[in-house]
Amino acid sequence: MPSHNVGILGATGAVGQKFIRLLENHPWFTISKLGASQRSAGKKYTNAVHWIEKTELPRQAADIEVSECIPDHFQDVDFVFSGLDSSVAGDIEQQFAEAGIPVISNAKNYRMHDQVPLLVPEVNPDHAKLIKKQSFTDDGSGWIVTNPNCVSVPLSMSLKPLAAAFGIESVIVTSMQSVSGAGYPGVSSLDIIGNVVPHIGGEEPKVQTESTKVLGNLADDIIDFNDFTIQATAVRVPTIEGHLLSVAVKLNNTPSSIQKAEQAFTEWDNPISDLDLPSSPDNPIRLYQKERYPQPRLHADREGGMQTAVGRLREGTVMDLGYVTMAHNTIRGAAGGAILNAELLVAKEYIK
Amino acid sequence: MPSHNVGILGATGAVGQKFIRLLENHPWFTISKLGASQRSAGKKYTNAVHWIEKTELPRQAADIEVSECIPDHFQDVDFVFSGLDSSVAGDIEQQFAEAGIPVISNAKNYRMHDQVPLLVPEVNPDHAKLIKKQSFTDDGSGWIVTNPNCVSVPLSMSLKPLAAAFGIESVIVTSMQSVSGAGYPGVSSLDIIGNVVPHIGGEEPKVQTESTKVLGNLADDIIDFNDFTIQATAVRVPTIEGHLLSVAVKLNNTPSSIQKAEQAFTEWDNPISDLDLPSSPDNPIRLYQKERYPQPRLHADREGGMQTAVGRLREGTVMDLGYVTMAHNTIRGAAGGAILNAELLVAKEYIK
Amino acid sequence: MPSHNVGILGATGAVGQKFIRLLENHPWFTISKLGASQRSAGKKYTNAVHWIEKTELPRQAADIEVSECIPDHFQDVDFVFSGLDSSVAGDIEQQFAEAGIPVISNAKNYRMHDQVPLLVPEVNPDHAKLIKKQSFTDDGSGWIVTNPNCVSVPLSMSLKPLAAAFGIESVIVTSMQSVSGAGYPGVSSLDIIGNVVPHIGGEEPKVQTESTKVLGNLADDIIDFNDFTIQATAVRVPTIEGHLLSVAVKLNNTPSSIQKAEQAFTEWDNPISDLDLPSSPDNPIRLYQKERYPQPRLHADREGGMQTAVGRLREGTVMDLGYVTMAHNTIRGAAGGAILNAELLVAKEYIK
Amino acid sequence: MPSHNVGILGATGAVGQKFIRLLENHPWFTISKLGASQRSAGKKYTNAVHWIEKTELPRQAADIEVSECIPDHFQDVDFVFSGLDSSVAGDIEQQFAEAGIPVISNAKNYRMHDQVPLLVPEVNPDHAKLIKKQSFTDDGSGWIVTNPNCVSVPLSMSLKPLAAAFGIESVIVTSMQSVSGAGYPGVSSLDIIGNVVPHIGGEEPKVQTESTKVLGNLADDIIDFNDFTIQATAVRVPTIEGHLLSVAVKLNNTPSSIQKAEQAFTEWDNPISDLDLPSSPDNPIRLYQKERYPQPRLHADREGGMQTAVGRLREGTVMDLGYVTMAHNTIRGAAGGAILNAELLVAKEYIK
Repeated sequence: MPSHNVGILGATGAVGQKFIRLLENHPWFTISKLGASQRSAGKKYTNAVHWIEKTELPRQAADIEVSECIPDHFQDVDFVFSGLDSSVAGDIEQQFAEAGIPVISNAKNYRMHDQVPLLVPEVNPDHAKLIKKQSFTDDGSGWIVTNPNCVSVPLSMSLKPLAAAFGIESVIVTSMQSVSGAGYPGVSSLDIIGNVVPHIGGEEPKVQTESTKVLGNLADDIIDFNDFTIQATAVRVPTIEGHLLSVAVKLNNTPSSIQKAEQAFTEWDNPISDLDLPSSPDNPIRLYQKERYPQPRLHADREGGMQTAVGRLREGTVMDLGYVTMAHNTIRGAAGGAILNAELLVAKEYIK
Repeated sequence: MPSHNVGILGATGAVGQKFIRLLENHPWFTISKLGASQRSAGKKYTNAVHWIEKTELPRQAADIEVSECIPDHFQDVDFVFSGLDSSVAGDIEQQFAEAGIPVISNAKNYRMHDQVPLLVPEVNPDHAKLIKKQSFTDDGSGWIVTNPNCVSVPLSMSLKPLAAAFGIESVIVTSMQSVSGAGYPGVSSLDIIGNVVPHIGGEEPKVQTESTKVLGNLADDIIDFNDFTIQATAVRVPTIEGHLLSVAVKLNNTPSSIQKAEQAFTEWDNPISDLDLPSSPDNPIRLYQKERYPQPRLHADREGGMQTAVGRLREGTVMDLGYVTMAHNTIRGAAGGAILNAELLVAKEYIK
Repeated sequence: MPSHNVGILGATGAVGQKFIRLLENHPWFTISKLGASQRSAGKKYTNAVHWIEKTELPRQAADIEVSECIPDHFQDVDFVFSGLDSSVAGDIEQQFAEAGIPVISNAKNYRMHDQVPLLVPEVNPDHAKLIKKQSFTDDGSGWIVTNPNCVSVPLSMSLKPLAAAFGIESVIVTSMQSVSGAGYPGVSSLDIIGNVVPHIGGEEPKVQTESTKVLGNLADDIIDFNDFTIQATAVRVPTIEGHLLSVAVKLNNTPSSIQKAEQAFTEWDNPISDLDLPSSPDNPIRLYQKERYPQPRLHADREGGMQTAVGRLREGTVMDLGYVTMAHNTIRGAAGGAILNAELLVAKEYIK
Repeated sequence: MPSHNVGILGATGAVGQKFIRLLENHPWFTISKLGASQRSAGKKYTNAVHWIEKTELPRQAADIEVSECIPDHFQDVDFVFSGLDSSVAGDIEQQFAEAGIPVISNAKNYRMHDQVPLLVPEVNPDHAKLIKKQSFTDDGSGWIVTNPNCVSVPLSMSLKPLAAAFGIESVIVTSMQSVSGAGYPGVSSLDIIGNVVPHIGGEEPKVQTESTKVLGNLADDIIDFNDFTIQATAVRVPTIEGHLLSVAVKLNNTPSSIQKAEQAFTEWDNPISDLDLPSSPDNPIRLYQKERYPQPRLHADREGGMQTAVGRLREGTVMDLGYVTMAHNTIRGAAGGAILNAELLVAKEYIK
């Protein structure tokens, strides 16, 4: 069993806290360094953080002295997870990569970079090969891998079986996003109790692009984006965890029946199931038959928050299919997705 | 100024209560009869109703003795509003129409009937002419007029200016619907606090059909349905009042710019503005420019709950346009819409 | 009819916005100046404010250029309302008073000051006389009047009839407070959706003291605090407007029956009813008989948000009585209360 | 390790579902019979139930054929858990006891019965002896044991250390109760979103009596109720799970310092810790120091939902102490509490 020391950048933020909770008893990874802003540096983590998770602050993390996010302080880690805010992630992640420290990032900054994999292990594990093309260091020791935005994760997961079976032509999606997606303090309660806010700053451009990279084809060390088009509307709803997407999709080849579309999901093979990664769900995509399912409050936690739910799959009147899909936005759509990426990269020996 | 005595069928239900509140100080209409089920009949209204409105139960209604919904008991009214449940509305409304009592109904039963107008005064006021084709009575004294479902109201309102300017080819809509739409007690709090339920029984078929009738063309006493197609997903969100719709629309003629699309809304002429109907909003369609608007909690009450809000109008990547629209589901989308219908029919002298 | 020009300090904050909305069509007061921090100064109000009220930003206010809160800029006003944050209210309000500009303040800073009335017009209108004792200016032209904290308003209102009839010995109160009490952005949605937070910083000391001053006796220009004791627990609940208090009260003289306690409320005489103040509710205290009433969402808006609701009045097992009381925290408990104070002071000719 | 076959009465209700979830992998108890009303009898459980738990319906329960709640159908069980509604629990539980089947009940019907223990294992385990006094059967094989109401559980748990150290004179409590306490569908979303309802039918009498029995003294086979008095106000708030209580308590002997009161909690000895019961929390009472803790959404699940949280312990101004306490209402306060009772009774060999 591999064993690695990891650092967490942005450790006091909402994503950083989720990394710490999810890694508490991780069989492969041990947290040895926590990085945050200058304001927190030098404090014990328990004193630097406003802990918002439901479970106790893990004791191992509580006593770690927080460091600034400078590569020199992270020389003893095998790699870092980045939960940094995008306002600082660009520079800091580059510095770590250039210092030879691999970065498994949840930030958006490098997601669309030519040489950076935008990785969802069950969807495009082969994109990891792009790591070898990165030029942050001469010896290839430093590199960056990213996971998609919290909406693009269930979108690309749910589109994958359809893409494989029928090809995707276009997608229209309305994402009903929970407040945890905005971090802490994030969304004001005055804005969202008993309300819906029909806009989330900067969200729709990410949703409209990332899935076409994830579902793209890697050939000759270049990702050929999938050529479907996405039209997205992102709204905030008063849920805590779990983004629910209402999706209409036009396919290249119309399924001959709704049963064929269902089979695309139920017969889809998880390409990484043989790797037995610790955070990999037994069933990455769950197709619900009950019309009232899936629901964020009931199902976002399933399989440790790592399962993507699909429901209400039905023939469309304008596009071929309609369905809803949901994933836990701060686990599968953020920290948990990054951890699964790291596990894949260990199994594939990109991380040693 | 006209003066009419009106009855309300289904007076103890959520829609019935809204009729009573909205008619409290109505300049034209006076409530003289309240109808409900046998269980309530014979009681004073105040003792029969579980009042859920925020304002006081109007004194005039409180003391009325509730009658069963039998035409004989309603001989002194000029017409009735029906807030009946669809399980009983079919028979009862027919009995009233056959007894020569006009029925202004919010129920779904006759909405798609060939001879029954599905009326939104600002959209298709000419459809009222269908009344003359109805054969419930020999002398034409009894008839039925309906208003659309609470989602179809803002959908058809917001599509009208676009239809007039560009023609509609197809529509994809996700409606995020408030709990008041399910009546009382309606949605269990255990189902909806901090949650979204991705299905509302029976809702999508109504949304997918009604707007094509509302936006149809009346010729030779037959409504030629508009030939666009709608694909709908209806979900329940934890809002109290106001259904918010995320809409993508493909037009027959693509606007040359987003400004042209905006002009379709801002330059649209309300065809009934000269009638000065008491419940008619000054501005039936409000186009919001702020991206975070409209919001159910903030804007559903605007213009007495009778205004349809449109926001986030923007070019689409898959279809021509994207926008959100919202209306107060129990006022504009139900009782208030029915009252406006009655006002139109008084002004046009269908009701005398 | 009197006419006064007023300024508003802290105009861009949540309380300031409420002042602007409530004064939109006020028969006596016209907003002529808006004060805020240096960051907003020089901008038109519409550009300086993040407007959170449900109604439109009033046009008259929208175009006013915001000034810094310096008395020199407010020479043409007859008095100012202060919605300032307590971190700056102490100095700024003093500067205004010393410059001869009366201050009707919602801030906490001077509430417990010996010479400053803590005024609830229906409870202690005579305390206004303290104004004459203030020494901010030699000629008495500048002074400060305050209203109590948003919990102390319904608490002192509901205790007043009991104090008059039976005398108060001690009070135990749990206040379930809405998120609007924390301003904007205020309470994080992550903290409060589907949750209760059992502490509100700095709230309980105010609740435990203010009512004893409000219910005190003014004699020889000194307020003799009422000598009952209050034990308070302040918690945050996911309501928007309206603080609901659960109260247990021990009286000096136990009522001989629960009917006698009810009579204390129903027969209580509003001492300012003859003044016909514009913001004065017809019925300042409403005693509800239905056990499920009052409720924040249903009843906080009654009488323009100026009514105090009392319900569930019943004999206690440990103390004499138990009851719940509620008032709209940002209207009756803040801006509306301050406006009523100003109206009283105009009627009493403290403001000329 | 003991092994017992158990039946569940009221298996399709909210409490019944919780029994089934909590017993899924129980080391001692295996569900062999499920009882419900005639309407469900004969169906497979999965077809009879509207499953509302977040986790999957356990497969073992899904296929069990539901029986009517008649003792003849439950001859092969060692005892039954009752999650019956109080409207039917009285008769049915008596029939089971008379048929020689022990009943571990969550219903209120027998809680205050002279011979029935109202059992909280950590508080009054010795009350189990009352079982021997019951006369449902000649041979003592059939009997009833109950757990307190969901508010009385954290109330009696939190009062126990104080009673032991200082004696209790009187208690004033406001309980802010989550919607799951009303079962399913229970509270209408229209009543509770963004709202508080200041009354819960039938709740306060239970809260005002049960804790005095739980904290009573068993002598000569009679429970001498503790002689303190409780004044309760029960309100509904929009939380899902966890009842939060605001408590003021007057003690027989005032602690000399708040530290002494804290010590009463931290030094309290759990009398059943040596029994190592499967559902027994490591730390039955957790005293939180952070003022903003405990919170229902964050902490109700701690220790499998079996821990009682105490926070904000402080000196009072009217009574000796103030504090808040919370427990998971449907686990610790209902099904989980009943399971712990059964475990105690197995360990004590009342169940064989």
